[in-house]
Amino acid sequence: MRMNKNSSNVMALAPNTSNKRETVCIFGTGDFGRALGHKMIQSGYPVVYGSRSTQISNLIPKDAEVLGHAEAAQKAAIIIIAIPRQHYNFLTPLAEVLRGKVLVDISNNLKLNQYPESNAEHLAQLLPGSKVVKAFNTVSAWALQSGTLDASRQVFVCGDDVEAKQMVMNIVRALGLTPLDKGSLLAAQEIENYPLQLFPMWKFPIFLSLGLTAFFFFYCVLLDIIYTYIYEKKDFSFFIAITIPNRVCPVMALILLALVYLPGIFAAIIQLYRGTKYRRFPDWLDKWMLCRKQLGLIALGFASLHVLFTLVIPLRAFVRWRTSTRIISQVMNNKTEPLDHTNAWLSDSYLALGILGFFLFVLLGITSLPSVSNNVNWREFRFVQSKLGYLTLILSTAHTLVYGGKWFLSPSTYKWYLPNIYILSLIVPCAVLVVKFLLIFPCVDKPLTQIRQGWERNPKYSEQSNYIINKSAV
Amino acid sequence: MRMNKNSSNVMALAPNTSNKRETVCIFGTGDFGRALGHKMIQSGYPVVYGSRSTQISNLIPKDAEVLGHAEAAQKAAIIIIAIPRQHYNFLTPLAEVLRGKVLVDISNNLKLNQYPESNAEHLAQLLPGSKVVKAFNTVSAWALQSGTLDASRQVFVCGDDVEAKQMVMNIVRALGLTPLDKGSLLAAQEIENYPLQLFPMWKFPIFLSLGLTAFFFFYCVLLDIIYTYIYEKKDFSFFIAITIPNRVCPVMALILLALVYLPGIFAAIIQLYRGTKYRRFPDWLDKWMLCRKQLGLIALGFASLHVLFTLVIPLRAFVRWRTSTRIISQVMNNKTEPLDHTNAWLSDSYLALGILGFFLFVLLGITSLPSVSNNVNWREFRFVQSKLGYLTLILSTAHTLVYGGKWFLSPSTYKWYLPNIYILSLIVPCAVLVVKFLLIFPCVDKPLTQIRQGWERNPKYSEQSNYIINKSAV
Amino acid sequence: MRMNKNSSNVMALAPNTSNKRETVCIFGTGDFGRALGHKMIQSGYPVVYGSRSTQISNLIPKDAEVLGHAEAAQKAAIIIIAIPRQHYNFLTPLAEVLRGKVLVDISNNLKLNQYPESNAEHLAQLLPGSKVVKAFNTVSAWALQSGTLDASRQVFVCGDDVEAKQMVMNIVRALGLTPLDKGSLLAAQEIENYPLQLFPMWKFPIFLSLGLTAFFFFYCVLLDIIYTYIYEKKDFSFFIAITIPNRVCPVMALILLALVYLPGIFAAIIQLYRGTKYRRFPDWLDKWMLCRKQLGLIALGFASLHVLFTLVIPLRAFVRWRTSTRIISQVMNNKTEPLDHTNAWLSDSYLALGILGFFLFVLLGITSLPSVSNNVNWREFRFVQSKLGYLTLILSTAHTLVYGGKWFLSPSTYKWYLPNIYILSLIVPCAVLVVKFLLIFPCVDKPLTQIRQGWERNPKYSEQSNYIINKSAV
Repeated sequence: MRMNKNSSNVMALAPNTSNKRETVCIFGTGDFGRALGHKMIQSGYPVVYGSRSTQISNLIPKDAEVLGHAEAAQKAAIIIIAIPRQHYNFLTPLAEVLRGKVLVDISNNLKLNQYPESNAEHLAQLLPGSKVVKAFNTVSAWALQSGTLDASRQVFVCGDDVEAKQMVMNIVRALGLTPLDKGSLLAAQEIENYPLQLFPMWKFPIFLSLGLTAFFFFYCVLLDIIYTYIYEKKDFSFFIAITIPNRVCPVMALILLALVYLPGIFAAIIQLYRGTKYRRFPDWLDKWMLCRKQLGLIALGFASLHVLFTLVIPLRAFVRWRTSTRIISQVMNNKTEPLDHTNAWLSDSYLALGILGFFLFVLLGITSLPSVSNNVNWREFRFVQSKLGYLTLILSTAHTLVYGGKWFLSPSTYKWYLPNIYILSLIVPCAVLVVKFLLIFPCVDKPLTQIRQGWERNPKYSEQSNYIINKSAV
Repeated sequence: MRMNKNSSNVMALAPNTSNKRETVCIFGTGDFGRALGHKMIQSGYPVVYGSRSTQISNLIPKDAEVLGHAEAAQKAAIIIIAIPRQHYNFLTPLAEVLRGKVLVDISNNLKLNQYPESNAEHLAQLLPGSKVVKAFNTVSAWALQSGTLDASRQVFVCGDDVEAKQMVMNIVRALGLTPLDKGSLLAAQEIENYPLQLFPMWKFPIFLSLGLTAFFFFYCVLLDIIYTYIYEKKDFSFFIAITIPNRVCPVMALILLALVYLPGIFAAIIQLYRGTKYRRFPDWLDKWMLCRKQLGLIALGFASLHVLFTLVIPLRAFVRWRTSTRIISQVMNNKTEPLDHTNAWLSDSYLALGILGFFLFVLLGITSLPSVSNNVNWREFRFVQSKLGYLTLILSTAHTLVYGGKWFLSPSTYKWYLPNIYILSLIVPCAVLVVKFLLIFPCVDKPLTQIRQGWERNPKYSEQSNYIINKSAV
Repeated sequence: MRMNKNSSNVMALAPNTSNKRETVCIFGTGDFGRALGHKMIQSGYPVVYGSRSTQISNLIPKDAEVLGHAEAAQKAAIIIIAIPRQHYNFLTPLAEVLRGKVLVDISNNLKLNQYPESNAEHLAQLLPGSKVVKAFNTVSAWALQSGTLDASRQVFVCGDDVEAKQMVMNIVRALGLTPLDKGSLLAAQEIENYPLQLFPMWKFPIFLSLGLTAFFFFYCVLLDIIYTYIYEKKDFSFFIAITIPNRVCPVMALILLALVYLPGIFAAIIQLYRGTKYRRFPDWLDKWMLCRKQLGLIALGFASLHVLFTLVIPLRAFVRWRTSTRIISQVMNNKTEPLDHTNAWLSDSYLALGILGFFLFVLLGITSLPSVSNNVNWREFRFVQSKLGYLTLILSTAHTLVYGGKWFLSPSTYKWYLPNIYILSLIVPCAVLVVKFLLIFPCVDKPLTQIRQGWERNPKYSEQSNYIINKSAV
């Protein structure tokens, strides 16, 4: 029989050929407890459930045993605590039985930082004689049971006892998952917060992008469709599908890319003004700097859409109609236009600048993939993100300037005295590039470099405000 | 001299400044044994070979020593067993010499699950006094020797003795490879099967795609080339290069994308019908669900080809000829067509829908990269793959409907009474979307959610068929 | 108070609820020492600095204590040595205080392999009673302090004492970084060299590409702009923006892709000639083989630029002008050209070949992403890189042949008796494909396979030149 009859209070680290996997005990017959039990039985582990009542447990996997808590705990060296934190107190009477055992806390909370200390640390305080390991909370019961673990197979594990942690990590591996050692039990809080997050770093960049996109979209609808309808009696409502998105996307891409580099500019100015790097930046600047990657990737998304929208232009029915109308009108007027060299230069230049800018932008995006950025050192990462990033911004700004430049001074573009969105889109990138250009002048760059290397213009100031000399007081 | 003269039966964990690397013994002078020895000598390890005959070993690396098996084994704490499994029996007489030593099993089999137990476990049973570690079997001798390890540098390591495993992992690291701890020796079977696989998860999706592609290709050749040739006496054989691939690719992309979401629909219906989630799905459904990611990536490949084939349309000689012919005929007939607003709307709409659908599809593809999906939690992964995935399917289906809609009712498209492939391509996606729409109605969604949370409509039923109440029998 | 008053010479591995993190001592109040101290205090570690003078330390984080070296060391089990290697000697008098302590060497050098042994090994030799761990040297002080760790969060850790390493890795995790165990202290040299590198594998491929690109660019400027200006008095200087880049990019992509497969051809020929695989390849061939991945990725970059430059062709003012001029001249001459079927075939074929080639090329690029190539085994990697790679080369060469074929024999393309760059670009790929075709003939393939499996045509030869028979000399 597969069932392990003798009490395995003594840990069997050496595999026993007749019964290869050690028995695992699960406290609690809730959904996740059952799913985990199923999976463990499939992977060859004898499973024994600890339950208050052994009568109503008809959902328990059929190969599992169901016993009272104390009896079940005695059968295994590892006990998985699949009960909610609110009921942890009932484990205290079992302290003697659980002494020396490995307790696996798999609980999750309903909101971030719900309790002052993590569930696993709470459990460790209640049962100081047991070895608590946090694991499995990032895995979904549904995914575990249906076997469709397309999602992350990583299981974060933490705990203070190294051997206990190793035993739990071996079970994780046996279930086909990848354990990731996150260190001591202090990491439990972070691990418990992890599955509750939904792209926390992306929230601000996405809302900012949605807001700006809506603004620019309606601005374009106003100037390109409503204005034309009122003053020229022409219906260009189909511009909503491609023409206007292809105006909004490049504008968004350029502005968001500039917003990636703007906080660095602010930081440099603040450091120059303060004359020290040892004071914290304002909170808004810190937060802004932390979401630069996300802003850049959203900008890359808009740039990609702009590329696609631009490349389909020759396929549009409207554009094909306009092209043939122009040719026919030339034929009708019996004139052949010579090649306009300035126009050929401008047209080819802005296309070439755009292509190079987009190419570098995609390179930046690729280097921000986790597996790529983990394979470059800090010097290489700085080179790519800073040097290539600024080159991308320069090329994109030049692309927009060459494309929209001719409209700057032409009064016909100022419908209702409102500027074209090309002009609006250039404000932030041009400001960033001008200030960055000033910052690389030696007379500014030298003191800035010194400050960043730890030099202080006015040590007294920072000393009074931030640091205290700790005289040795032993 | 580099050679370690005194018998190193005692493990030297503390590095010794005069002889930094501990001696490694290799049993067997076959190709992989020699390649590994070369590499180890390059990395600074003294290597001693154990061989039946010390005469014929002229291929052995020149800095290595060659001794009899017993003598060689006595010189090292780690012995690499580079001999085939069939000859493991000859090691049993050496059991006493090998007691307490670390034996590294590097063997591979010729086919999956060739033996009931893995080679490493077989070795551990033959020599219970030694510490067996499985490693290096996933590395190619050729790649190891030529130094061109572009491929995976990961070396899977497993073993029951933690210290022995650490020693082997240190050697792996010293050779410039990345060890990956797979747990106890039970993982050896999986590790031995690994290098024999050739995209096992991709086989069914690829054969399905090839079959469907061939069918749709010949269907198009029949309707677009042969039919036209017979009834209109026109030779459009060059359609084989771009026109027909650009019909087959979008059809394949749409059908395969719908096939990604179809098994989820089936699963929901089965669960609703059974009233429980605690019964296994039929085998075909389980297998289908496990290859959804591969189906989706192949669909993305077809979609990318469709985008490229579409974007080169204006560059095709045939298209340029057709455009100029149309314009010239307009001029000859002395008429200028006004802009057809309906056509402009339709044309711009299906292009915009296609662009957005493709953009989301690429996003889905990026999140399925291992390094990205490891960095999102389960909730985020579900959000992307389920919400964004359905949005992609909706946009792609709408793109096809708007593009092909006008042909549905026109009789001229039913050549030989066969429907156009646009119509065929829409069956599966439309069915998936309609049923999914029904499933999100509260009257269906509520019981389904309950079932997925573990509720059962008819507990008796599942109890009888699947589970046995285990009364405590201690 | 948070300060740990009693001397913690005894390591407190079990977390203490009143003071959760163990005190860390930092020797040296330089920039990195201060940044690390700041970050540790933020993460809840009590920090005590060891400094020669406790007077001038006004930049020290305010919550840190500053003591003399010996007093500070007594307060902690872990001491971070944030002083330059040149000053390590002053630690020798402290040997007694530091006995049994964990010393973390975080130093970096100014150039690669600056000293014969690594700084960490030097430290371990000076203080043999301490447990030296190398860590943190790959992290930037600036990034650590500003909290903007977009770059790699990996911290390489190595050391001979497993427990000491674990303690340091726990601190690394607590700071929000990812420790990566690189094995024993022998890895310190490599870890110290790591942050000094700037894409070392990319240097040769990038310089080669830049050189070739410059050559082909000026070759095209000469033939397409200067020749036309001199002999036809036409100004096509705007070709510099798109037309010429779109000639150079495909040529570069094709040549670099062929250069990826050329060293494999050379290696096969050398092995066939020598009749053995047990002799090293010449150095230039070894180096070339090691940068094949980089060459391939640069080729992919050029191919992507070629695709973008090609797809914008219909948007160029010059092309639109040329199209309408052609149509108008047809109208003027009152003739309508029939469809040229040969031209339609050629045009569609080279576009389709190019699309398929580029598609496979992108697939190759994706499989070279670290996270993807780590998830395929060696057999799968070989299949993709060798089979799919050659298919890509065949498709790309065919694409160029079909496109440029008609110009081969036309004398007008030989301006100034110089061949068109299409012809130049085909030399290397055609040579590679022809020789590869010869190598897969059975009469060549069979001996080559034997050689690669370890067979030798002339064992004596290799024996004399490379190996020495080591008779057992015990």
